[in-house]
Parts: sequence; structure tokens; C-alpha cells
Amino acid sequence: MSKITLKEISKILGISTSTVSKALKNYSDINVDTKIRVQELAKKHNYTPNAFAQSLRSRETKIIGILVPELVHHFFSSIIDGAINEAEKHGYLVIVLQSHESYEDEIKQLKLLVDKNIDGIMLSLSDKTVKYDHIRTIINEGMPVVLFDKITHLIDCPKVIIDDRKAAFSATEHLIKTGCKKIAHITGPLKPKTTIDRFMGYKIALETYNMPFNKTLIYTSENLSFEDGYNLAGQIMAEHPDIDGIFAFIDPVAIGVLKRLKEDKIKVPKQVSIIGFSNWFMSRTTSPALTTIDQPGYQIGRNAFQLLLKNLNHKREGKPFTSETVEIPTSVIIRQSTRAIMAPVI
Amino acid sequence: MSKITLKEISKILGISTSTVSKALKNYSDINVDTKIRVQELAKKHNYTPNAFAQSLRSRETKIIGILVPELVHHFFSSIIDGAINEAEKHGYLVIVLQSHESYEDEIKQLKLLVDKNIDGIMLSLSDKTVKYDHIRTIINEGMPVVLFDKITHLIDCPKVIIDDRKAAFSATEHLIKTGCKKIAHITGPLKPKTTIDRFMGYKIALETYNMPFNKTLIYTSENLSFEDGYNLAGQIMAEHPDIDGIFAFIDPVAIGVLKRLKEDKIKVPKQVSIIGFSNWFMSRTTSPALTTIDQPGYQIGRNAFQLLLKNLNHKREGKPFTSETVEIPTSVIIRQSTRAIMAPVI
Repeated sequence: MSKITLKEISKILGISTSTVSKALKNYSDINVDTKIRVQELAKKHNYTPNAFAQSLRSRETKIIGILVPELVHHFFSSIIDGAINEAEKHGYLVIVLQSHESYEDEIKQLKLLVDKNIDGIMLSLSDKTVKYDHIRTIINEGMPVVLFDKITHLIDCPKVIIDDRKAAFSATEHLIKTGCKKIAHITGPLKPKTTIDRFMGYKIALETYNMPFNKTLIYTSENLSFEDGYNLAGQIMAEHPDIDGIFAFIDPVAIGVLKRLKEDKIKVPKQVSIIGFSNWFMSRTTSPALTTIDQPGYQIGRNAFQLLLKNLNHKREGKPFTSETVEIPTSVIIRQSTRAIMAPVI
Repeated sequence: MSKITLKEISKILGISTSTVSKALKNYSDINVDTKIRVQELAKKHNYTPNAFAQSLRSRETKIIGILVPELVHHFFSSIIDGAINEAEKHGYLVIVLQSHESYEDEIKQLKLLVDKNIDGIMLSLSDKTVKYDHIRTIINEGMPVVLFDKITHLIDCPKVIIDDRKAAFSATEHLIKTGCKKIAHITGPLKPKTTIDRFMGYKIALETYNMPFNKTLIYTSENLSFEDGYNLAGQIMAEHPDIDGIFAFIDPVAIGVLKRLKEDKIKVPKQVSIIGFSNWFMSRTTSPALTTIDQPGYQIGRNAFQLLLKNLNHKREGKPFTSETVEIPTSVIIRQSTRAIMAPVI
């Protein structure tokens, strides 16, 4: 039997060959009715789905791309580690790229990946990204994309997240339950959703425990760096010498705080308790070791690849993309920079 | 004009077409005379070199691979960072793979890269690798390969290294010059060249300064971990309470030592000085901050890509591969875990 061609399908259905081609590839700019008509006709000629599947299969490179803001960063390198190991199990290799927190670089790097005909993309948004058409276009052209960690709900695709608000609530709650009465928060640059969510978690925890919110207790670390923490700790203690707890947005900042307080002979956790966020490797090496929120990077990477794989398979089978969101649980890692939990205050 | 074919060249020179093909690709198993005869004949027919160059060019994927023992490791992620940024400048994307210090995985991962028809490979050997035929074969088949950090001189290819022996000498010398009289060394697993070289640097420094070498002062960290350092420090101080200096093979181990000594109320650096190796990010966050050897990962990655690029170009131009070795200088980063340098002892 001779194979049915795109042209024949287009003639039978009275639509253009490019529409047929797009419908077979499940492009999202083709309406669902057309897709169903094209795909059913292709199936009816039982030899055609194979030809189609084969042509798609042969176009696969079995290479995917992962784009992160920064590679030399414990959390992101753990994510890449998880993604690479999971991808390898399924025969995929992983190209790694960095946006360096630049919107322009993000666009450029995604274009490089698309130009290489890779099969799919895992992406954590740069802090500067507030428009998403560059990503929507790629998805609309049939590229499976998964967002992780720094995501936006304005893009319709699978996502792997942690609940930053809930995690930050737990961090603040831990300080409250260990007896802190006046807690400062060091936040990050204001744009990214993670910053806002962590700040909100802090604020809601205070409200929940009937503690006053005082905006002079919010300090901003622009660079999320150890040095920022070191300097801000000096400023915090000068402006609010009666503070007894500090919740820092991310571990390096918390470790900077810790170092400064120790140098200034402020006892941790006796006078001031400190909690970080992310559970960087070094947080267990400090003295005292840092209490922090575990943000399991390896698992995030592994799950993100699994969601990508699902859509790689869906694409091959001509099914529409899924867009589920997987939330990875976080937990408080209790170490020595916070005090023991007190009996609940009734 | 019609293009000259491989078959025509093979007839004219009386050699097989596969030899002609290999000679044009500059494979190392073809002798130089044959290569010259083939390449000159190809050039003489002025349209042929273009056809050849084009065929080679069209086969380029502009993707290279980098294989490291572990990605979640400050030094290696810095190397990858340098390699990716440099590769991007030249239009190359980088697939990242890990051997997890396994010889079998190294072989497997290299095969994955070769099967993907990538253009070149940057490689740091696993600790378990003591045979090199899997790498030699790839190079002989015409793949540009660059070794970095964990290398062997038994493979003929470009290499980027630091002089571990010289660096370890400087580390030990720094302890001596700051007044240490009895210095322990925590070494790593014995196989890798880096371990042996760092141990030798320590030993030669003692000899140079007429200090006795005592093999009971050598301790081994199997996992190169913070926990190893923590535990070994206890053992060292129990067995040699009069020790006044410790040179640890790598920063996480040194930081484990630091934490243990502080817990045991041993003053650093007053009673015991500590020096690490590698300048991990966290070494500047400890209290006291760690004196260490700077091992510039970013520069190593950047240089390794530059050497790879050279051979990618040589391959395209039909020139033989170079095999130069670039040494990246290291330096002692003086922080607070060692004392001030004393007046020289004459």
C-alpha cells in the first residue's frame, strides 16, 4: 500500500498542507477540531501514523536544554544534577545554559537552544523577566517546556515549584515558637515571585501569632550575598538593638549575618536566633550550624525532567501537552542557630 | 566543473577510499606522507577543498561535551561556568555530564557524547580511571579532546592543569613561615595524581625547611568531606596533642577540622593553624575565615575551551591536533586561620 501524503490529507479535508503538518505535530495554533479531523484521517490509513511517528522520531535529537540563572550556586547545580541523572536514564543528554539573571540573555539562550533543534527545554526564569512572549512563542511552535523554581503562572506549561510562602511561614513560625519576639526579615530584590512569597510568608506568620508587623524590620539584600548579610547585620543591630530573631531570604545572607554577629560578640542563638533558606551545603559547616529551610534541588530537577519527558512522549504520540504543577515539599532543618522550641503559649 | 570524488583520488593515488576519507579528516592512524599526498591532490583540484570543507562544516553540530566527576562541587561548577561562557562566545553549546568518579560511567558517558556526533570533548578524569584506551580511541577517530584538572600525561592531547605539587608546597611553606613546627597533612584517596602531588608538595616543603617528615602525621580522608575533617581533627589532636598546623587536601575537610577544633576549645590559629586547598566559596564565610590555595576554576574552564577551539579549527582546516599543556597559576589566599608571617629564620 502506498503511504498517504500530507497533500492527499489536505485535499480530502480541504485545508492547506501546512495546516495538516501543524495539526499532525499538534501545534497549539491549530484548533482542536482540525487536529482531530487530521489525526483521525491519518490514523484511518493504518500505515500513515507509522510514517508520521517515524518522521517525528527521526527528527528527535535526544538532547534537551536546561537554562538556569546561575550555575555556580548550590541550589541550581543540585537541580541540574537531578535533571542530568534522570535524563540519562531515559537516553537524553542535557545542554546547560545560564541567563545570568538577564532577560536579554534568557531570550538569546532560548533561541540558541531552539536553533539546535533540541527536543525540549527546562527553564528557571531570570529575576529580570516580566514579559513571557519569548517563551509562549516557543511553546506554540511545538517545543515542550517545563518551568521550575522561578516560574510564572502566566505561562501555560508544566511547572515544578516549592511553596515559598508556606516555607517562609514555617521559618518565621519556627523563630516564634523558639521564643523570638522581634524578628527582622532580610528580603531579596523585589521583582521575583520568590522574594514576594517569602516576604508574605513572614508577614502572615506574624499576623497568625498576633505579632506586630513593622516595616522598619524589613531589610533588602540586593546581591543575595554573604557580604550583604554581613553588612546588613551591622545595620540591623544598630537600628534595632533589641531584635532577637532574623529570617534571611537565602543561606549565604544568613551566614553573613551569623559571622557579623559573632564578630560583634552577639550570642547566637542566645541573644539573636538566625534562620536561613535553601539549605546550602555550607549551612551545616558554620559554627553554630545554621537552621534553615530545605529546598530539595535534586528532586526539583528530577521531577522537572519527568514532566518534560511526559510532554516529549505526548508530542511523539500527537497528544496535547499537559500543564500540571508539581509542588515539592520543604521542611525546617533545625540546627544550632535557633533555640529549642518552647512550650506553646496559650 | 565536476567535483573530484573520493573514488577518483583513491584511483589516482592507488589507495583505498576509506584511507582517502581518513586522510582528509586527518585521522591519526593514517601516516603523514599519505595525508600530505591526499590533501595536496584535493587542494590541486581547487573546487575540492571547498567541497571537503563544506562536508566537514555541515557535519559540525556546534555542540561540545564536558564530563566532570561531580557537578555539585564549587570547583567543577566554576570550571563549567568558565567553559560555557567561553563556548557561547564562539557559538558552541555545552552538554554537561558526570562520571560520579566511576571508570565505567566515564566510558559510558563518553560513548553517549560520541554517538551524538558532538564536535569535541572536555574531560576531567574520574578518580578510578587508570586505563586510558577509551579516550585514546576517541582521539584517534578524530575527536578533539582536552583534559583538565584531573589529567594523565599518558594521553596525547591538550591539557589545562594547575601545579598541585607547587601549590601544596606553598601551602605547607605558609604554615612554616607563620611559625608552625609540627604540621599534619590530611590527604585524599591515594589513586588520583592530585592527591599524590599535594602530598609530595607537603613532604618537599618539610625537607626544604629541614623539618622531619613523620608518617604518623599523614591522615587520609576517603570522602573528602566536611564530616571526614571533623572526625579526623579529633583523632589528630588525640594522637598528636602538640600539633600546631594542619594542611588539608581540600577546603570542606579543612572546614570540618576548623569546626571540630573550635568545639574542642582549641584556638585557631593561636594554638593550631589550618590551611585548605581550592578556595571554595564557603572558605571565606567561616569564623575564622579559612586560609587556602586559590585554584581558579573559571579560568581553567575558559582555557580548556580555548584549547579545544584551537583543535576544532585545526580539524576543520585539516591540520594535525596540537597537544600543548597550559598551567594556570595558583596562589595562597591568606585569611584568619593562619598566623602572621614571622621574620625569616636564618
